[in-house]
Amino acid sequence: MLEYDIMKENNNLGKLFVVSGPSGAGKGTICKRIIEEIKEPKVELSISMATREPREGEIDGVHYFFTSKENFEEMIKAGGFLEYAKVYGNYYGTPKEKVVEKLSQGVDVILEIDIQGALNVKKAYEQAVLIFVVPPSMEVLRGRLEGRGTDSIETINMRLAETLKELTYMDQYDYVVVNDDLEEAVKGAKCIFQAEHLKSTDQINNIVKAYKEEN
Amino acid sequence: MLEYDIMKENNNLGKLFVVSGPSGAGKGTICKRIIEEIKEPKVELSISMATREPREGEIDGVHYFFTSKENFEEMIKAGGFLEYAKVYGNYYGTPKEKVVEKLSQGVDVILEIDIQGALNVKKAYEQAVLIFVVPPSMEVLRGRLEGRGTDSIETINMRLAETLKELTYMDQYDYVVVNDDLEEAVKGAKCIFQAEHLKSTDQINNIVKAYKEEN
Repeated sequence: MLEYDIMKENNNLGKLFVVSGPSGAGKGTICKRIIEEIKEPKVELSISMATREPREGEIDGVHYFFTSKENFEEMIKAGGFLEYAKVYGNYYGTPKEKVVEKLSQGVDVILEIDIQGALNVKKAYEQAVLIFVVPPSMEVLRGRLEGRGTDSIETINMRLAETLKELTYMDQYDYVVVNDDLEEAVKGAKCIFQAEHLKSTDQINNIVKAYKEEN
Repeated sequence: MLEYDIMKENNNLGKLFVVSGPSGAGKGTICKRIIEEIKEPKVELSISMATREPREGEIDGVHYFFTSKENFEEMIKAGGFLEYAKVYGNYYGTPKEKVVEKLSQGVDVILEIDIQGALNVKKAYEQAVLIFVVPPSMEVLRGRLEGRGTDSIETINMRLAETLKELTYMDQYDYVVVNDDLEEAVKGAKCIFQAEHLKSTDQINNIVKAYKEEN
């Protein structure tokens, strides 16, 4: 659980957005554009922690925080993760402290994580806003994965089958952005961020305060 | 109640937006801009029905549908209103049929009505999205009302007192738009319309259908 009781009185909390979607849906590009283009409030990407070896070109503190399994397991015991998972013997997780720090500074935070992680975050922190990014069709997704030239036909077929399975989780998300035209998808995603800050639950205390001070 | 059971299967239903706020908050201007600027899906303003005499310059079918008290009361009996109220002996209401017709055509509909009406609409049709427009402060509101030059100081004071009362209903609305800078307020309101169409509940059936057709 996120320890938010003391923060409930703080109306300038940042918002926690969780972005998921099949590989090739373009969620990374959309998140990057959001972070670059939304100025107020600032939006930052949460960096996950991982126990696997860095791949070529991966930088500690940029792509992941790399750490040992021992340290990761100690952090689990101390309740230090908002969500974590073990995949092929390695741990991946979202360190809670950094997220709470950003939110308490009024900064919006994006977690770009998988469905299981997203649903765990929602359980721990129900105010989290879950966004699912999907390609417009399986055909387009196949084209994008083939276009990368990095995956075998077997891997691509496996990913497409996984995508069909993942779609059944869409109803547990708050929003679905179809990434057909990238500009439209970015525009839609940015609107979600803005509209969420216009929710009455976010605005009321500040407005009532402003009005009462005058009267 | 809106008879929506048969329409629940229709994924291309328009959305019903209800806009309220104190006199001088600028809700009329914001609604006008939304109707002009949002092209997809189309947005239309619902025209209320009234039993009072048209004022100078008011056109039947543009500002209101003017009708007799007898006709209005018959429509009430027939369940023909989404909401209605009697104010100083005259009836005002939102005819249900036209709203349902537009929504079923995939057109978004705006009702610009008072708080009591808005809450009644939400009771009848819980999918309705309620937006409250407020001025940034009482001082600004006073300035705007005085600037109009149409109201006496007593009327203005009464309106300001009413506004303070109305603010207590904000928590029953979904969104609050503060109209400080008009362009920002219009941008925010337009984002609410767009984001509401990205809600997963709206998108899932269409997406699953599109994906299944291919496979």
